[in-house]
Amino acid sequence: MQFNPFLKAIKTYESGKDIDLIAKEYGLNEVIKLASNENPYGVSPKAKRAIIDHAHLAYLYPDDTMSELKQALAKRYNILNENIIIGSGSDQIIEYIVHAKLDHSKAYLQCGVSFAMYEIYAKQLGVKVYKTPSLTHDLNELGELYQKHKNEIKVIFLCLPNNPLGECLDANAVFEFLENIDDDCLVAIDGAYNEFAAFKDDKKRIDPKELINKFQNTIYLGTFSKLYGLGGMRVGYGIACKEIIDVFCKLRAPFNVTNLSLKAAVAALNDDEFVQKTLENNFSQMRLYEDFAQKYQIKYIPSYTNFITYFFDKKNSTDLSEKLLKNGIIIRNLQSYGLNAVRISIGTAYENSRFFEEFSKNF
Amino acid sequence: MQFNPFLKAIKTYESGKDIDLIAKEYGLNEVIKLASNENPYGVSPKAKRAIIDHAHLAYLYPDDTMSELKQALAKRYNILNENIIIGSGSDQIIEYIVHAKLDHSKAYLQCGVSFAMYEIYAKQLGVKVYKTPSLTHDLNELGELYQKHKNEIKVIFLCLPNNPLGECLDANAVFEFLENIDDDCLVAIDGAYNEFAAFKDDKKRIDPKELINKFQNTIYLGTFSKLYGLGGMRVGYGIACKEIIDVFCKLRAPFNVTNLSLKAAVAALNDDEFVQKTLENNFSQMRLYEDFAQKYQIKYIPSYTNFITYFFDKKNSTDLSEKLLKNGIIIRNLQSYGLNAVRISIGTAYENSRFFEEFSKNF
Repeated sequence: MQFNPFLKAIKTYESGKDIDLIAKEYGLNEVIKLASNENPYGVSPKAKRAIIDHAHLAYLYPDDTMSELKQALAKRYNILNENIIIGSGSDQIIEYIVHAKLDHSKAYLQCGVSFAMYEIYAKQLGVKVYKTPSLTHDLNELGELYQKHKNEIKVIFLCLPNNPLGECLDANAVFEFLENIDDDCLVAIDGAYNEFAAFKDDKKRIDPKELINKFQNTIYLGTFSKLYGLGGMRVGYGIACKEIIDVFCKLRAPFNVTNLSLKAAVAALNDDEFVQKTLENNFSQMRLYEDFAQKYQIKYIPSYTNFITYFFDKKNSTDLSEKLLKNGIIIRNLQSYGLNAVRISIGTAYENSRFFEEFSKNF
Repeated sequence: MQFNPFLKAIKTYESGKDIDLIAKEYGLNEVIKLASNENPYGVSPKAKRAIIDHAHLAYLYPDDTMSELKQALAKRYNILNENIIIGSGSDQIIEYIVHAKLDHSKAYLQCGVSFAMYEIYAKQLGVKVYKTPSLTHDLNELGELYQKHKNEIKVIFLCLPNNPLGECLDANAVFEFLENIDDDCLVAIDGAYNEFAAFKDDKKRIDPKELINKFQNTIYLGTFSKLYGLGGMRVGYGIACKEIIDVFCKLRAPFNVTNLSLKAAVAALNDDEFVQKTLENNFSQMRLYEDFAQKYQIKYIPSYTNFITYFFDKKNSTDLSEKLLKNGIIIRNLQSYGLNAVRISIGTAYENSRFFEEFSKNF
C-alpha cells in the first residue's frame, strides 16, 4: 500500500519505559523515575479530589467549549476566554502552530538544543529547521539567522526556560528581540516551565497578557503537566490574540481533552498551597544537585526549571544512564540530542538522595 | 498574519451545549441528554473503580507503549499487539487514515449520509469527497462510484452500523464488496456501534481478525465511547495489518491518551455484566421508540445502534428540537446533514418516558 511520501522521513517516537516494566525487567523492588520532569509530589490534593468526584461522569462527552477551564485561565492571566485554546498537552498546540503556519516550503527557527517536539512535528510536514550554533538561547544568533532567512522562517520557538538545558532568557530581552521580528512570523513562547523560572527570578516571568498585547504575532504556551502535577491527564493551552486562536480552533478536533482532565486542571490551578510547596522544595533540592555537581566536578547550566542537566567530559552518558537504570534510577540520557549529558528531574528529598547514592557508586 | 490557505475552507466545529449550560440558560431543574449516543447507564462500575484507584497517579505521563490496553484488546480479538493503535477516540484514527492516505489530489468515498468526522478531516486537507445518491449504505452504488473514480479514491469509509442513520450491512456482503477494491485503497470499517449490531443480529458482526487477515487493505475502528461508557475519556482504536499500524504510529503524537483513560478502558472491556445489561436494555427500550413512531406515523430506519432516527414530512426538525430543548430534552437535529430528521439516543426507561411525554406534547 502507498502512503503519503512525507511519512517515509518520519521516525516513530520511542517513549521511555514505564516504571512497572522496568521493575519487572530488572527485578527491582523500587524504581525512581527522574526522567520526565513530572511533579515529584504527585497530584495536587484538590485535583485528585476533582477526579474522584467526577469519575461517575466519565461516560459523558467533555464540554467542548471548555468554558470552565478557559474561565479559570482567563482569570489567572487577566485575559478573555477568546484568547485561549486548550490542547491535549501543550504539545498539541505546537502541532497546531506547525500545521497552521508551515509546510515543506517554509522553515522554523530554534536555539541549538530545545524541546524535541518542535522538530518532530515540523518533520512530519517536511519543514526546514534552522538552529543556532549555540546550544542555549542566544538572541544575537537567533536574530542573525532570522534576518538571513526571514523569507522562509515563519515560526520561531523560544523555550523559556529551555528544555532540556534549563537556562532562561530575561523577559525584557525577549520583548526587545520581538521588536525586530516581522508580523507574519509567529513566535511561540513555550512557558511549560515558566512558573519555575519566575519563582527563582521574577525577571524571567513572561506575562501572557503583556506579550500578546504588545506583539500580535506571538503565542504563549502553558501546561498542567509540570508544576500542576497532571502529566498523565494531558492538558496544555495556548494564549494569543483572537485572530490566531480562531484559526487554531479550526485545527482542533472536537473533544481533544477528557472531561476529567478539564475538571482536574481547574482544581489544580486553584491549589496554591500545593503549587507553593512544589516550587519551594524544587529549588531547595536543586541546590543539592548543584553542590553534588561541584563536588564531582561535573559541568551544569544553572537551571530555572524542575530538572538539571549534567554534562560529562570523560564518562559516557549512555553507560551511566544504563548503570543507574539497572539500579532502579531512571534519568534522561541526552545522547539523542547529540549531547554527552543527562537530564535529571528534581525529585523528592528521598528520591534525590537515592540518585546521589547510586550516581556516586557508578561515576 | 498569513495562515496555510487550506484553513480558509474549514468551518470551526461547533459542539452541542453542555447539560449544565442548558439547565442554566432555560432555568431547568432536569436536563435529559439523548443527543450524543453515550451509555445511559453511565460508567461501568469496574471502570469507575479503576479511575478512582489510579487518580493518585495522574501526575505521571501515560505508558506510551499502551501495552496493557493493547494486550486486553489483542486477547479480546485474538490478534497481536502490533495490529493495534490506540487513539484519543476512534476519531483520531480517522485523522490518521486521512493524513496517511489522502491529500488535495485524492478522494474518499462514503454513503450519502455518514459520520461527520470523515468529511471534517478530509476537508482540512482539501480532499475530494464522493457520496452515493442513497443516504444509507448501498454496496452497488458504492461499487459503481469506486470503479468510476478508482484512480482518485484512496480511502473508503463504511460505517457499520451507520451513524447517524442506524442501518447496518451484513458482514458477508461487506466481504464480497471488498473483493473488488484495489489493494492500494484503504477501506475503513467503522465499528463504533458494531457491538450493538452484532447483539441484535449476528450477521452484522465484523470480526476484525477475519477482516484484516482476508484484506490487508482494511482497518477496523472501535471505540470505548459508546457501549463501554467512556465518552468523556477519549479512547478508541484501530486494528489493521502491521504495515498499516506502523505507518499510523508515525502520525501518533506521544501520550495521546491519558493514563486514567487507559486504565478505565481495560476495566470497561472486562465488565461483561455492565455490557450485557446495556445491550439488553438498549434493544428492549428501542422497541418503545419503534412503537411510538408507528403510533405517530413517523418514518424511521430500523436501528442496529443505541440511537434511532425519526424522519419528518410536515413537522420541522429544527423547531421540534428547540421545543424539546426548552423542556429539558436534548436530541440531535440532523438539519446540518441536510435531513428533516432527528437522532435520539436510547436512554434509560425514565429518560425515554420523558422524551415520549414531551414529544407528544410538541408534535
